Amino acid sequence: MTVLILTSEEDVTADMVVLRLGEAGVPVVRLDPADLTNGVALSGEYVRGACRGHLSVGGRLVSMNGLRSVWVRRPGDPAARAAHPSAWLTEESSQALYGMLRCTDARWMNHPDAARRARHKPWQLRLAQRSGLAVPATLITTFPQAAREFAERFPDLVVKPVSGAHPQEPPRAVPTSRVAPDADFTAVAFGPTLLQRRIAKRADIRLTVVGEALLAARKPADPDAHPDDVDVRFAPSVSPWLPAEVPPRVAEGVLRYMAGAELAYGAFDFAEGADGIWWFLECNQSGQFGFVEMDTGQPIAATIAQWLAEEGDAGRGCADGDRSTAS
Amino acid sequence: MTVLILTSEEDVTADMVVLRLGEAGVPVVRLDPADLTNGVALSGEYVRGACRGHLSVGGRLVSMNGLRSVWVRRPGDPAARAAHPSAWLTEESSQALYGMLRCTDARWMNHPDAARRARHKPWQLRLAQRSGLAVPATLITTFPQAAREFAERFPDLVVKPVSGAHPQEPPRAVPTSRVAPDADFTAVAFGPTLLQRRIAKRADIRLTVVGEALLAARKPADPDAHPDDVDVRFAPSVSPWLPAEVPPRVAEGVLRYMAGAELAYGAFDFAEGADGIWWFLECNQSGQFGFVEMDTGQPIAATIAQWLAEEGDAGRGCADGDRSTAS
Repeated sequence: MTVLILTSEEDVTADMVVLRLGEAGVPVVRLDPADLTNGVALSGEYVRGACRGHLSVGGRLVSMNGLRSVWVRRPGDPAARAAHPSAWLTEESSQALYGMLRCTDARWMNHPDAARRARHKPWQLRLAQRSGLAVPATLITTFPQAAREFAERFPDLVVKPVSGAHPQEPPRAVPTSRVAPDADFTAVAFGPTLLQRRIAKRADIRLTVVGEALLAARKPADPDAHPDDVDVRFAPSVSPWLPAEVPPRVAEGVLRYMAGAELAYGAFDFAEGADGIWWFLECNQSGQFGFVEMDTGQPIAATIAQWLAEEGDAGRGCADGDRSTAS
Repeated sequence: MTVLILTSEEDVTADMVVLRLGEAGVPVVRLDPADLTNGVALSGEYVRGACRGHLSVGGRLVSMNGLRSVWVRRPGDPAARAAHPSAWLTEESSQALYGMLRCTDARWMNHPDAARRARHKPWQLRLAQRSGLAVPATLITTFPQAAREFAERFPDLVVKPVSGAHPQEPPRAVPTSRVAPDADFTAVAFGPTLLQRRIAKRADIRLTVVGEALLAARKPADPDAHPDDVDVRFAPSVSPWLPAEVPPRVAEGVLRYMAGAELAYGAFDFAEGADGIWWFLECNQSGQFGFVEMDTGQPIAATIAQWLAEEGDAGRGCADGDRSTAS
């Protein structure tokens, strides 16, 4: 049974996992969907109620029914590097490749549907609430009046994008910023705005979840930091990430979240408040982990390799029961 | 409890359903996501473990918790008609709107995840096989040699796109065509090609499924038609669509398919063979039904209105259980 990794060629994080799988003697096929029709080929046959699919990469043929797991890391757009790329070819190739992979019984990290759903911030906040995690008071709105009233109830706010990175090429991270006490909310009418109670944090937490394994890292806040420096990605670093214990109640909530989201991998960001509470900020289903592993020495790549290599529950293939008819 | 219809202004098919809902006294909000920030506003608040969302359309305010059902008909791209449209604004608006709607307990026709998955032709074929429907022998491939061998086993073939309509503006339907006996399959290497055994059909079948209601229509084939005219959408019409009985075995298979696909609405195309077998061609989760209702007089719009108005099982909102913490 083979592990299929969908990612680009220059992905050193994937390299770390491939290395572990190699050490464990687990067969791996690494493939960039961008190379479809140009080094990568596929075929699927539906005859007399049965289905047989194959992938070929660099001349190596793999049966889709023999896939143990699929790791959707950083795949390129299907057929983007074909001899004559086009939107039509990409669409045809995407439907063919992912349509066939969806029919296998492989386990997914993460399944495309779960990954897509997991990106929705409003949905994240609601699932976090329902999972028992502490969520800072949040408003997402296009009503200036709702924003004004929220700022009266919660005077110390930050503003951040609803959707994550700005879709320019390459994508640009939009920093979380503090809202000035006398802010004018008129412009809220021109686009959804996410306002959130600022957590006066004593540390940032990155909790990486792989299956049921929780690997937490903590970075103490700079005691001299200005309260306007709210975004750890843009603040000067005074400490590396250090391994941390996960409070049992948070561990429970996070596993409940992962089950509700049907995710096998998630990178949670929390702000640790002055009261010690871990406040849920977001869960990135494709969050990087290389920098955490480097700082903390936590075996995240090895844990991912282990999950991919396991013979676990079948994934989300087609409906059960084979009631074949003639063809 | 309100029915939310996401569609464009000029959608006469939606008009038919709105009319029925109005007659039944069911509150309806019709909204085009393209009008977000320009006549349509939204707001969602996450405070102390609870979530409250609102939509405003033309000055009318609706609580998201009071939504009975959501009909995703022909929605425009979110904020596409904003004063200053942009890819970023569309992304932010999409995440905000659909992220909030995903948190409600409304029933969906169809849920966006189910709709997206249902478009994959390889997945459709596999699910149809597993549901016990008759599926013509099919190959989807980029291997010329596989195509050649398939044509030897099944000499009478048609070719059609894997993904449906060509993504030009407006989208262009690509006709299903017969494969010449001496076809050269070399070009298969340049893009996934779908080859399927041609059914010598005596009729086309359109089976519209709404919840558990099956409404079938049949159009007898023109006895004088040339065997190369395989695509009913492009062939001259000699008969209107006529109401038809669904064979019990097909009915079972179709309901199994709908359950496996988690769809509330689906338009199935079958080819009725000379042997009377209904051969599954595809299921379009957003297929038109107006032309069938016009020809057959079948109450499809009324059946959709009834489904949307029902107080049924909750949809696919967030995970169950409210375990709130402070905020």
